[in-house]
Amino acid sequence: MQYTGHSWVMVMDRLECLFCARRYPLDVFEIFCPFCHEPMLISSTPRKRSFALDRSLSLEKYQSFLPLAHVTKTLSLGEGDTPLLPLDRVRRKHHLPPVYAKNETINPTQSFKDRGTAVAVQKAVSLGIKSIGTVSTGNMAGSTAAYGARAGLRTIVLLKADTPPEKIRAAGIYGPILLKVRGDYGELFAASLEIGRKHGIYFMNSIDPLRIEGYKITGYEIFQQLGGRVPRYLFVPVSSGGHLIGLMRAFLDLKEEGFTEELPVFVGVQAKGCSPVARAFAGGKARYSSFPHPATIAHAISNPAPPGGNLVLKLVRENKGMVMAVTDAEILAAQRELAELEGIFADPASATVLAALIKLSRRQRMSLKDEVVLVITGSGLKSMETTERLNIPVHQTSLSRLEKALRTIGA
Amino acid sequence: MQYTGHSWVMVMDRLECLFCARRYPLDVFEIFCPFCHEPMLISSTPRKRSFALDRSLSLEKYQSFLPLAHVTKTLSLGEGDTPLLPLDRVRRKHHLPPVYAKNETINPTQSFKDRGTAVAVQKAVSLGIKSIGTVSTGNMAGSTAAYGARAGLRTIVLLKADTPPEKIRAAGIYGPILLKVRGDYGELFAASLEIGRKHGIYFMNSIDPLRIEGYKITGYEIFQQLGGRVPRYLFVPVSSGGHLIGLMRAFLDLKEEGFTEELPVFVGVQAKGCSPVARAFAGGKARYSSFPHPATIAHAISNPAPPGGNLVLKLVRENKGMVMAVTDAEILAAQRELAELEGIFADPASATVLAALIKLSRRQRMSLKDEVVLVITGSGLKSMETTERLNIPVHQTSLSRLEKALRTIGA
Repeated sequence: MQYTGHSWVMVMDRLECLFCARRYPLDVFEIFCPFCHEPMLISSTPRKRSFALDRSLSLEKYQSFLPLAHVTKTLSLGEGDTPLLPLDRVRRKHHLPPVYAKNETINPTQSFKDRGTAVAVQKAVSLGIKSIGTVSTGNMAGSTAAYGARAGLRTIVLLKADTPPEKIRAAGIYGPILLKVRGDYGELFAASLEIGRKHGIYFMNSIDPLRIEGYKITGYEIFQQLGGRVPRYLFVPVSSGGHLIGLMRAFLDLKEEGFTEELPVFVGVQAKGCSPVARAFAGGKARYSSFPHPATIAHAISNPAPPGGNLVLKLVRENKGMVMAVTDAEILAAQRELAELEGIFADPASATVLAALIKLSRRQRMSLKDEVVLVITGSGLKSMETTERLNIPVHQTSLSRLEKALRTIGA
Repeated sequence: MQYTGHSWVMVMDRLECLFCARRYPLDVFEIFCPFCHEPMLISSTPRKRSFALDRSLSLEKYQSFLPLAHVTKTLSLGEGDTPLLPLDRVRRKHHLPPVYAKNETINPTQSFKDRGTAVAVQKAVSLGIKSIGTVSTGNMAGSTAAYGARAGLRTIVLLKADTPPEKIRAAGIYGPILLKVRGDYGELFAASLEIGRKHGIYFMNSIDPLRIEGYKITGYEIFQQLGGRVPRYLFVPVSSGGHLIGLMRAFLDLKEEGFTEELPVFVGVQAKGCSPVARAFAGGKARYSSFPHPATIAHAISNPAPPGGNLVLKLVRENKGMVMAVTDAEILAAQRELAELEGIFADPASATVLAALIKLSRRQRMSLKDEVVLVITGSGLKSMETTERLNIPVHQTSLSRLEKALRTIGA
C-alpha cells in the first residue's frame, strides 16, 4: 500500500495498544488488544504531513494524517468542514473567556459520527468488504446506515429491544437490515464483533480505531479555524470515549509535526446520572467500574460501561486533562441557553459541554486569553421528546385579535 | 451607504417590480408592488461583481452580489457551503445523465431557509430593527427563530392553530414569542405584513426580497462546484416560489456579469395534491388560481395560493423553464431511493425533484452531457411522521440466537 501522490509515503497501517505498546497489522475485525483487552488505535508513523486546504472534501484536506492511501470521492456525503461559531452572548452572560462552538450537528446525518463513519467506510470499500454493521440506537445507526447505503454495502443495524419506532425509522430510512436484539447491550457489543469476525461483517462500533481517525479531523479544523492556534480548553462529551480520544490524538499529531508546542486542556464531560469515567477520574483511579442504574436525559452518552473508558483515563492524566460530570438540570439549562442566546439546537448530550464550562469557570480562574472550544456533537432534532420538559410557552389568539394579542404579549 | 472595501461601490438598494418595471427605495416593510400587487425583488445594479472564495462565510464569498454593504460575522450560523453530491447509483438505476444533489439539509437548521434568513437578519440588524417575525409552521419558523436568537432580536413566530406540538417546539427551543392564530393562513400572511409595518416588526416571510437574495448564493455555489459550468437542468421544489426565483436570479446575474452565456432549464416542482402553479403552467396561463382542497404528503410545499406564483410563471416562461407536478406515490418512492441508494434523507417536499427528473427523463430525451442538479431543500428528520407510511421492516431476535438470525435474514 505505497502511495506517492503526495510528498509522503504511506506505510502499512498498524494498530497499537497504548497500554502495552504492542503493535499489530491493521485488521478491521480486531479492535481490542489481545493482551490488555483495551481498544487499540491506528499507530501514527512519523512522516511529512500537511494540510491540503485547497481540496474540496475534508478527508482530502487532512488525508496525510489518515490511514487512507486513496479517497474515493463518491463515498463521501460532504461530512466535516463544520463551523466554529463564537458564542458571544453566552460569554457575556456568564463572564467567560472567548468561547466557540464547533458545531458538529451540521454534518450529513446531524452528528459527529459521520466523520468516523466516512473513514471506516472508505477503508471497508478499499479492502473489498461487502457487509458492515453497527450496534447503536441513535446517531451512529443513522450515520452508518447512510454511508453504507451510499457505498452500496449490505448494512446491519443491531438495536436494543426497547428502541422507540421513530428512532428506528431515522436509521431505517436508509434501508439497512434492522434487527432488534433482546439481552444485555454490553454483551451485544461483544457478540457483534465476534460474529462480524466470523462472517466478514465489519461492525464499525463506537470505539473502532478507524472511526477515531475520522474524529481527529475535527481537531485539525479547530486549529485551522482559530488561525493556527490551539485553544486553551477543549470540552467534549464522553460516552464510549472514542470522540475524546480522537481529538486528543489530533492535537498530539499537530505537536509531533511541529505545528504547535501547546496542547489544550482536554475536558471530557459526562452526565452525572451515568458518569463512570468522571467518577473514576475524581477518585484518582486508573480504571473505571461499570455505572449502576444509569438515569439521565442525555441518552446519547448514557453508557454505563464505556469500552474506551480506561484509555480516556490514561490519556487525560498523561496530558493534564480532566473528566467532569454535570446534572440533568444543568444540562437542560445549558441546552436552552445555547438555543435562546446563540441559535444552536444541541441535544442534551452536547449541552453537557456548556454546563461543564460554566461549572469549571466558577471553580478555576480563566483568563481572557484562554480560548475555549465546546464540541457540539449532535442535533436536538433527534431527541425532540426531551424538549417536552422545557415547558415552552405558546400563546393563542384569532386573526381579528392578532394585533391586540401581540401588544399584550409585549411583542 | 457607500462601500469601498472592494473594487465595487454599493449603490442605494432598490426594489423593482418585474411586471411594471417600477422601482422603489428598499423598505423591508413593503414587499408587494403597490400597483401590481406582485412581489418585488432587489434590483440588481450593474457593477463589477466577483467571487471572494478565500473568505470563510458564504455571505462574504458572494457579498458583491448581495445588498449587504457589511457582513457582521457573529450573526452567521455557518449557513451555506453545502455539498454538491453526485448521485451515481440513482443515475445508473434510472439511466439518467449525470445527476447531482445540492444538499441544503446540511444547513444550521436543516433547510435552505437559513440562507434567506441570514441575509434578512443581517439587513435587519444594520437598519437597527429590534423585532422580526415570520408566519410558518415548519422550516422557516425554526430558521427565523434561530437567527433571531443569535442576533438578540425579539422574534415572533405566528403559527396555524392546528400546528402539532413537536413542530412548535422545534422552533420554540430558540425562545421566540410563539402565537397560534385561528383563521385563514393566507389572511394571516397579509395581516402579519400590515401589523409589522405599523409596529416596526420585520416579518421576513416566504417571499421576502432579502430572503430571495440569500437563495441566489445556492446558484453561485452550484456554478462554482461544477467547475464554472452551468447545469443543463436545475430542479427545485416550488411552494411560495421564492426559492426558484432566487435561483433564477443567480444564473441571470452570472450571465449579466459575463461568467456564462448559458442558463439552466429551470424546473419548478410541485406536489400534484397542491399544484396551483404547475396547473397554470400546463394550461398556458400567466396567472394561477388558488388550489382547492390541498392534499399531499409534501407539507412543506403545500401552499394553495403561493404569493410568488405569478412571478414564477413569468420568469419560467421568459427563460424556457417549466413547472411540473408529481404524485404522493412518486414522491415517497423518490424519498426512499434518495435514502437507500445515496444516503440522503430528504423530506417529501425535496424528494419531489427526483420524482420529477425521472418523469421528465421518460418524456424528453436527455443527453449524457446534460448535467442535472436537484436541490434538496429540507431534512426528512423534521417530518418523521411521514416515514410511517414507508413500512420499514424490523426483525427481532435474542442475543443467543443472534448469529442464526443474521444468517436467516441473509446478512
